[in-house]
Amino acid sequence: MGRLSALFEPETVAVVGATDREGAVGRAILENLRDGFAGEVVPINPSRDEVLGLECYADMSSAPPTDLAVVVVPPPVVLEAIREIGEAGTKHVVVITAGFSETGGEGAERERELREIAAEYDLNIVGPNSLGIMSTPNGMNATFGPENAREGSISFMSQSGAFITAVLDWANEQEIGFQDVVSLGNKTVLDETDFVEEWGDDPDTDVIIGYLEGIDHGDEFVETAREVTDDTPIVLVKSGRTDAGAQAASSHTGAIAGSERAYEAGLEQAGVIRANSVQELFDYARALSGLPEPDSEGVAVVTNAGGPGVLTTDAVGDSRLRMAQFTDETIDDLTAAMPDEANVYNPIDAIGDADIERFGDALDIALGDPNVGSAVVVSAPTAVLEYDKLAETVIEKREDHDKPVVTCLMGGQRARAAEEVLREFGIPNYFDPARAVSGLDALARFSEIRERTIDDPERFDVDRERAREILDRATRRDDNRLGVESMDLLEAYGIPTPEGEIVDDPDRARDVAESIDGDVVMKIVSPDISHKSDIGGVKVGVADEDVYDAYEDVVARARNYQPDATILGVQIQEMLDLETATETIVGMNRDPQFGPLLLFGLGGIFVEILEDTSVRVAPIGEGEARDMIDEIRAAPLLRGARGREPADVEAVVETVQRLSQLVTDFPAILELDVNPLVAGPDGVQAIDLRLTVDTEEL
Amino acid sequence: MGRLSALFEPETVAVVGATDREGAVGRAILENLRDGFAGEVVPINPSRDEVLGLECYADMSSAPPTDLAVVVVPPPVVLEAIREIGEAGTKHVVVITAGFSETGGEGAERERELREIAAEYDLNIVGPNSLGIMSTPNGMNATFGPENAREGSISFMSQSGAFITAVLDWANEQEIGFQDVVSLGNKTVLDETDFVEEWGDDPDTDVIIGYLEGIDHGDEFVETAREVTDDTPIVLVKSGRTDAGAQAASSHTGAIAGSERAYEAGLEQAGVIRANSVQELFDYARALSGLPEPDSEGVAVVTNAGGPGVLTTDAVGDSRLRMAQFTDETIDDLTAAMPDEANVYNPIDAIGDADIERFGDALDIALGDPNVGSAVVVSAPTAVLEYDKLAETVIEKREDHDKPVVTCLMGGQRARAAEEVLREFGIPNYFDPARAVSGLDALARFSEIRERTIDDPERFDVDRERAREILDRATRRDDNRLGVESMDLLEAYGIPTPEGEIVDDPDRARDVAESIDGDVVMKIVSPDISHKSDIGGVKVGVADEDVYDAYEDVVARARNYQPDATILGVQIQEMLDLETATETIVGMNRDPQFGPLLLFGLGGIFVEILEDTSVRVAPIGEGEARDMIDEIRAAPLLRGARGREPADVEAVVETVQRLSQLVTDFPAILELDVNPLVAGPDGVQAIDLRLTVDTEEL
Repeated sequence: MGRLSALFEPETVAVVGATDREGAVGRAILENLRDGFAGEVVPINPSRDEVLGLECYADMSSAPPTDLAVVVVPPPVVLEAIREIGEAGTKHVVVITAGFSETGGEGAERERELREIAAEYDLNIVGPNSLGIMSTPNGMNATFGPENAREGSISFMSQSGAFITAVLDWANEQEIGFQDVVSLGNKTVLDETDFVEEWGDDPDTDVIIGYLEGIDHGDEFVETAREVTDDTPIVLVKSGRTDAGAQAASSHTGAIAGSERAYEAGLEQAGVIRANSVQELFDYARALSGLPEPDSEGVAVVTNAGGPGVLTTDAVGDSRLRMAQFTDETIDDLTAAMPDEANVYNPIDAIGDADIERFGDALDIALGDPNVGSAVVVSAPTAVLEYDKLAETVIEKREDHDKPVVTCLMGGQRARAAEEVLREFGIPNYFDPARAVSGLDALARFSEIRERTIDDPERFDVDRERAREILDRATRRDDNRLGVESMDLLEAYGIPTPEGEIVDDPDRARDVAESIDGDVVMKIVSPDISHKSDIGGVKVGVADEDVYDAYEDVVARARNYQPDATILGVQIQEMLDLETATETIVGMNRDPQFGPLLLFGLGGIFVEILEDTSVRVAPIGEGEARDMIDEIRAAPLLRGARGREPADVEAVVETVQRLSQLVTDFPAILELDVNPLVAGPDGVQAIDLRLTVDTEEL
Repeated sequence: MGRLSALFEPETVAVVGATDREGAVGRAILENLRDGFAGEVVPINPSRDEVLGLECYADMSSAPPTDLAVVVVPPPVVLEAIREIGEAGTKHVVVITAGFSETGGEGAERERELREIAAEYDLNIVGPNSLGIMSTPNGMNATFGPENAREGSISFMSQSGAFITAVLDWANEQEIGFQDVVSLGNKTVLDETDFVEEWGDDPDTDVIIGYLEGIDHGDEFVETAREVTDDTPIVLVKSGRTDAGAQAASSHTGAIAGSERAYEAGLEQAGVIRANSVQELFDYARALSGLPEPDSEGVAVVTNAGGPGVLTTDAVGDSRLRMAQFTDETIDDLTAAMPDEANVYNPIDAIGDADIERFGDALDIALGDPNVGSAVVVSAPTAVLEYDKLAETVIEKREDHDKPVVTCLMGGQRARAAEEVLREFGIPNYFDPARAVSGLDALARFSEIRERTIDDPERFDVDRERAREILDRATRRDDNRLGVESMDLLEAYGIPTPEGEIVDDPDRARDVAESIDGDVVMKIVSPDISHKSDIGGVKVGVADEDVYDAYEDVVARARNYQPDATILGVQIQEMLDLETATETIVGMNRDPQFGPLLLFGLGGIFVEILEDTSVRVAPIGEGEARDMIDEIRAAPLLRGARGREPADVEAVVETVQRLSQLVTDFPAILELDVNPLVAGPDGVQAIDLRLTVDTEEL
């Protein structure tokens, strides 16, 4: 039993603002509750003694104790009503009333107060600006919508009330059932994370689905959803995907890793299966709610029609699944059971005159193959095939083998009766082969999610105090940008940097250069100059004897470029052998929802032109760090493609983890770019650094 | 009237093999024709006088003249029957009988003979192994399938008979109508190109759709479809997409540009809109068959529900369309017409209590905006909204403004009646906002196709005779592989190559090197050694005085690597300045269906690891050549990204066209790779060449 169980399983529900006025929301809710709810309904309205045949109370204090209160009073009195609910000891509240933050100004202030009252009385509030909630086992429809839900094992939350109304109307036609339904409204108190947690504990919820426009506390959501998805699949439509690009991002990394990428990474790390449309949402949910997990990725396709069989094979090719390779025994058995013209290799084409028995034999043999994890039955209508009989056979064979089976019984009216039979036994029928395979693909995706191990972030032994002191420089300098002069920040976190020093006179420059083997690299150090090379602020391969002049030149160019630039000195750095090394970039941009978003890519054109980057929400463990490196398209370059010497990928993996620790330890770091991090055969070196610090946070 | 008009509009149809035997195909066809066909049906069967109440004839010669004969006799007598049809002067034949090439052996021989008879009598044959054909205006159902089609403006061909049966059953439920339907069967005589041509001339066909597993003569198809799609959209499902990778490809380019890429390029060049599933096929066809073209890419979204409005906006963002920016006047008009809480910016949210009038006003104002090319009406069910009334309003506003409008009236049963009304006026309703937008997107795609200009391939002034002589070397050498020794082939076609010569003794090597400014590059020339660098067969930056020794060394290494290798000599080539240049690859692989498939990409990792290439079926004009270059992801590198000097892209464009001409002029060239073609600021130079020649074709 979860913390919110009384929200969905109340014995008594008060409707604060109940009325019998035609067209009023307070009437619609009361009617919906009166007509189906198994518990007691208590109308609250100071100006009535009775509403719709139910005894009405003037206020919460005079009413019998209730587990849940649904509030539909007008905005000006809503806060008072909720305070009364708190005083009466009711802990669960659904606020239908609108006119809060969504209207701005006064409404936003009202929402702030609502949050305070909730904290004061420890109230679990859904809404405000909610359509209401439903729970089918006890018949509770505490919404003002025209549709009631059928009972089923899908729990459904939505940030849009209209989305619920639209979906229920359609789902009822399709005979798709729900356990709980929640219209989240403004999410002032309870949000998606609370319901994911609650339904994760609910044995009657097989799948959690949702429509969200935003996730308020991404980090908490990821943590909770990760646990929940060990058992219960979560499928979400997160809309507003394409607006992401509009977000202004102040640093280079930020510009690439926009907010939609944070959602993409965060939801992926959370173990959420993402749907891009209403259709996908239910195509996935139908498979996930009624079928067992496949024990292998091999799919058998059984059909009576070549063309649709090829289409199904294409769809398998597009998915994470693959066509099963049958064992010799399976081939022999199929050959014995099928006519000569049939194709006994996968896809099995039992040909146009296949009757129920032949279809059943083919499916039975295929499901018995150890290489088959799941099956799709695809059929075109023929004179010899009754779809409802075929449905029964499919159900029987599916249960015999306890493997997931979906169907694509193509056609119109004649498929309907069969669909009904199949649905009862948890087998989704799809109109299109591609959609049938997408259902199995969602099952396979959920298996992957369940089986993945997410290792805890390693805690490296670092010098956190020294790092804090370095970051404090920003406060001391009254400039929130730190650059190459703060490379010791990386050293404090165990990230290798080249030998060198920042100096502020040409003599010292020569001394430092002489202490370094070979030629040196010299770079102007100034928070005001970002593109050092462009203005001639970088010199490569400088011999010791040229260092003095080079110093003067670099400083002169910087001054010339921007006379009032703050110049912190010139960096003298050892020359690295870049012939055998690869430039990479590791960056971080703090996302308002998900927190520190790490970015990895190869330097230069790979990030800027090919946009070949990977992102993760920090903190991350070793496995996720390695995945970041392996999933960029250009990864083979690091791994030693085309005769190159492989880079020390493990050192890159470790550096990404150390940076993950740094940005997690210091929320004051708003943005950070190590660009480049040079990866050679014998390790990595961070060559340059830029970061922005929120000095108030330090 | 097309060449095949009598196939779809016959006055008399003979059924050769007509029978009244229960369950026989010959009976099913006769029944289907008898029950609906407006013309005369003539059964042919030597053992009956009458079949199903119709007068039966012994053979074609004794029967009245017929426009079309449908053949259902058994395989052993089918050829004789078709010969009789030819003798009788009937020119159009549908062969239902199976047992041809699809069964191999004897069947394949039968199909060869069928082709001969067709040529002898000039017969237009559909099939064999066909389900039959339909044409709805005259009620002709000459198939043995259980379903008849409703009348409509979609003409439909399919390489799978079962696909037709499945689609018709579903389409009848959805009340989707067809003009002509053809089951292509084995395509021995008539194939997809013939029907595309025929329906392109048919004023009653608004959209051509098809399910194909292959296209037999890709080049002819492209040529025909290009013309047809000036007026009539073609939407195809081409299955077998994911098998492409399995095709063996012998050369480097071939391995990358597999057969699926040829279909992708060929269908794109043909102007075909490709669908990947049955659902997409009809989502597109429904929009294309009933709506006008949009005159701009701006979409207005009108909704009563925020969430679905955001989803629709996402879908527009994913498409080639964009959300329209309303004029100030539109904003003013919407503000005046909508309540305060409504959103008058796009998407227009008329909010939950929007009635028919408000919806109508919003749509009217939006469609009146000059920036709006099309609109989506998205609605959640509410108490104040009757969907059938809303449908009428949408129809009215759409016709007033003559702009395309699609709807997404979300919900189940309540949407059905509205759908029916909308359908009658050509407006498709979709269950899902994403699908509604995909319908508009198909319309916009078709506009693009109609508006594109495909310039004729330029005929460069080349030395074709010299090229032929060079290719003949392959015959003379009895080796179908030519290499760098044939660089003069490129010169004959006006493609620049570096100064240099192939020599076969070290003294001559030194002489050539001395005649070239600066250092030289030396490469072993041998058809047996592909990866010259790997075996030490290439030396870069060789000074004149070292050329003699380098010659000996390169040859020794080659001998050492492969003692029996044919060594044609050593190439001495001028050193190019590669600092400011970019390596590109231009290749060609001859596809069995589409002919010469050109490939372009940047060299090295871009092709091999990032697979960043573009392909086109040759011959191509200047625009297509330029598109090939611009559509690779790394194109900005050539155009001068990141401070590089831009390469001479026009020279690359010209080289691609010249190679297009070369491979078109010489079908004997099976594969060709110019790798690299170095593109610098002042032009291009082809550095290396490999090609394979079919010496029999020369």
